[in-house]
Amino acid sequence: TSAGDRGAIEQLLDPIHPADIAHLIEQLPPRDRTALIEVWKGVDGEILSELDEGLREEIIDTMAPAELAEVVRDLESDDVVDLVEYLDEDQQEAVLDVLDGAERLAVEKALSYPEESAGRHMQVEVVRAPDHWTVGEAIDFLRSDVELPDQFYHVILIDARLKPVGYVTLGRILSARRGQKLTDLAEESFRSFHVEDPAADVAHAFNHYHLISAPVVDDDDRLVGIITIDDAMTLLDEEHEEDILRLAGVGEGSLSDTVLETTKQRLPWLAVNLVTAILASMVIGLFETTISGLVALAVLMPIVASMGGNAGTQSLTVAVRAIATRDLTGSNVWRVIRRELAVGLFNGLVFAVLMGTVGWVWFGMPMLGVVLAVAMVINLVVAGLAGTVVPVILEKLGVDPALASGAFVTTVTDVVGFFAFLGLAAVMIL
Amino acid sequence: TSAGDRGAIEQLLDPIHPADIAHLIEQLPPRDRTALIEVWKGVDGEILSELDEGLREEIIDTMAPAELAEVVRDLESDDVVDLVEYLDEDQQEAVLDVLDGAERLAVEKALSYPEESAGRHMQVEVVRAPDHWTVGEAIDFLRSDVELPDQFYHVILIDARLKPVGYVTLGRILSARRGQKLTDLAEESFRSFHVEDPAADVAHAFNHYHLISAPVVDDDDRLVGIITIDDAMTLLDEEHEEDILRLAGVGEGSLSDTVLETTKQRLPWLAVNLVTAILASMVIGLFETTISGLVALAVLMPIVASMGGNAGTQSLTVAVRAIATRDLTGSNVWRVIRRELAVGLFNGLVFAVLMGTVGWVWFGMPMLGVVLAVAMVINLVVAGLAGTVVPVILEKLGVDPALASGAFVTTVTDVVGFFAFLGLAAVMIL
Repeated sequence: TSAGDRGAIEQLLDPIHPADIAHLIEQLPPRDRTALIEVWKGVDGEILSELDEGLREEIIDTMAPAELAEVVRDLESDDVVDLVEYLDEDQQEAVLDVLDGAERLAVEKALSYPEESAGRHMQVEVVRAPDHWTVGEAIDFLRSDVELPDQFYHVILIDARLKPVGYVTLGRILSARRGQKLTDLAEESFRSFHVEDPAADVAHAFNHYHLISAPVVDDDDRLVGIITIDDAMTLLDEEHEEDILRLAGVGEGSLSDTVLETTKQRLPWLAVNLVTAILASMVIGLFETTISGLVALAVLMPIVASMGGNAGTQSLTVAVRAIATRDLTGSNVWRVIRRELAVGLFNGLVFAVLMGTVGWVWFGMPMLGVVLAVAMVINLVVAGLAGTVVPVILEKLGVDPALASGAFVTTVTDVVGFFAFLGLAAVMIL
Repeated sequence: TSAGDRGAIEQLLDPIHPADIAHLIEQLPPRDRTALIEVWKGVDGEILSELDEGLREEIIDTMAPAELAEVVRDLESDDVVDLVEYLDEDQQEAVLDVLDGAERLAVEKALSYPEESAGRHMQVEVVRAPDHWTVGEAIDFLRSDVELPDQFYHVILIDARLKPVGYVTLGRILSARRGQKLTDLAEESFRSFHVEDPAADVAHAFNHYHLISAPVVDDDDRLVGIITIDDAMTLLDEEHEEDILRLAGVGEGSLSDTVLETTKQRLPWLAVNLVTAILASMVIGLFETTISGLVALAVLMPIVASMGGNAGTQSLTVAVRAIATRDLTGSNVWRVIRRELAVGLFNGLVFAVLMGTVGWVWFGMPMLGVVLAVAMVINLVVAGLAGTVVPVILEKLGVDPALASGAFVTTVTDVVGFFAFLGLAAVMIL
């Protein structure tokens, strides 16, 4: 019976962590997934929060308003925002309708901030204390029947205008004398964010300064929320994931996406690559007569292009990462470019000698070896240059270098590779 | 004067966060860097901890034992381990010699665990309480003159055999009645690690289960240390960085490495790629007569290989990430492979129509278009297959898929791309 099935599923899933249940649901084939959810009816807010975006929308779509109300009831405001921010309007409205007044206001406020901003990711439940309080006053406040967040690590100190001026760890409060002033115990690491600060900057700052939590302020410098390190860790993880996938020309995708969704995600990048490849072919087309004269050129030419493409990818990945970690800046960009040029030259020389020998021995033509060698050096130097300059320029233009650098750099190394090799061959051999 | 310079530098750097000073030192050209460090003499343990590994060793090399002693004095044991673990033996000995007995023991113990393990990254300073204590007993203990770590978020509960059995957040302790039992306040999220658990697993678990801190136990299940979320965030960041760089064929490198170091890091990957490229050339070599008969083939053949290479990189990046996040497992690998095959087929058909038309129109040969189209479909399907199967097999063999997948997949798509296109042309056109 379905009721019996339900009981069995509940018994099975009860001891499992929500993150693991979400993981399990993601791994099921679509048909089993739908069946499980329908029979079990046990997907709660925590599990929904852990699910891939696509699946989350799918499941919310199947829920009645009353079920949804049940699901979001226990979530804190930032988790609700996380749950609804990418839902379509109908679904979003359905979730907001079931929230009580204050929470709905908090969620709507958060949704009014830009996507991927500090305001979207902060928690509005903050433990704060006037900056003139003593340890004793803070302890009495915490022990009163005030409602505290599930997890908190700091008490934020605010001045009379609600501006956060410092914070004290709970450990310090617990171990200090009652009479001590909170400001004397404040941590040096304190720094706050503005609601519209990009989430990527927040994640970077948490990682760079080893922050545990940080207050978020509005335009008037008033405390409106807090970001904690567990949120920052999630953000950092998402940023990285995005960078990796973008560098490979894969949009936002997950394993649970359908064939059609995945095809659509990957198609644009392949289309861009097709344009690159056709450009490279047109360069080869310029040398049709040269190739007719010596077919060995057609055999060897992909080597130069391929080595350039790989060297370019190496340089651009280092540059893209260094831009993301703020290690590559205006003050050292020229030094980095010089270094990449030198590395390209040295590796170019190594592989020039190698490939020059191979080209000579393989086809018995010393001049073919020389052409291959010179083209290799040229293309590896150009690869180092393009791999650094392209991401830096894209960043300056406000385009995500992780997303677009690959296509540009490969175009450059393909075009230069084929042109240098075939052009030199046309001049020096034929 | 040098003393005056030193004063000026100190005044300038004093208000700056150690992480930012490290960042600044990294960005200086090598000559200015050495000059700054020599005149200032202000590099402390915190700054050293933040520096790139290469620079850290360089600076420690210039320090006298007394200076080193000064530098490591204020660091907690996990930071000392972090500082010395990759130093050469002489330098490591020099640092260990300046530590006091107990700390030296803790650091040596940590160094005895495998590299990149939980034991290497844990902090031995733990706040623990017997599991039969009440909130009042815990508070009295914390307020006694016991030495507490700088940052701690949980009190770990241990049983009579020193086994950690749960933990309580400081927030709970602060807001509960004195008479309440600590075990009643224990968090559900509790989970512990073994000293030899891989650091990557620890980082993944923190991210997956939203942990804040987790006890580390030895072979006898006794509490020996704790890992906190800020360490886990650093680990996760390092794991990601490593994956991104490995996928691009860049070893462990940083912007402050010299030209020679960088050349050496990148050379092996380029050498592997050279082998790949030569293999592809040998395939082309099989068809020299075919190409002599129709040079247009040489013009168009890189397009098929390039599209296959890109589609393969897309699939393999998704697979490598999914393996890292434990989303790709034995239970769904066949479904993922089927999906990749279908995606390859669909994108192959789209680009087959496109390129078939281009090939036909460009060279006025309908049959050339057909060959290009069929080769495109074959290569994109093979790319999807290889992009998924190769990383999965490498993982099974215990090889990091991020490191080695690229070379294998590109070899497959190059070889299949050239072979399919030129082979079909040989059969169908000539």
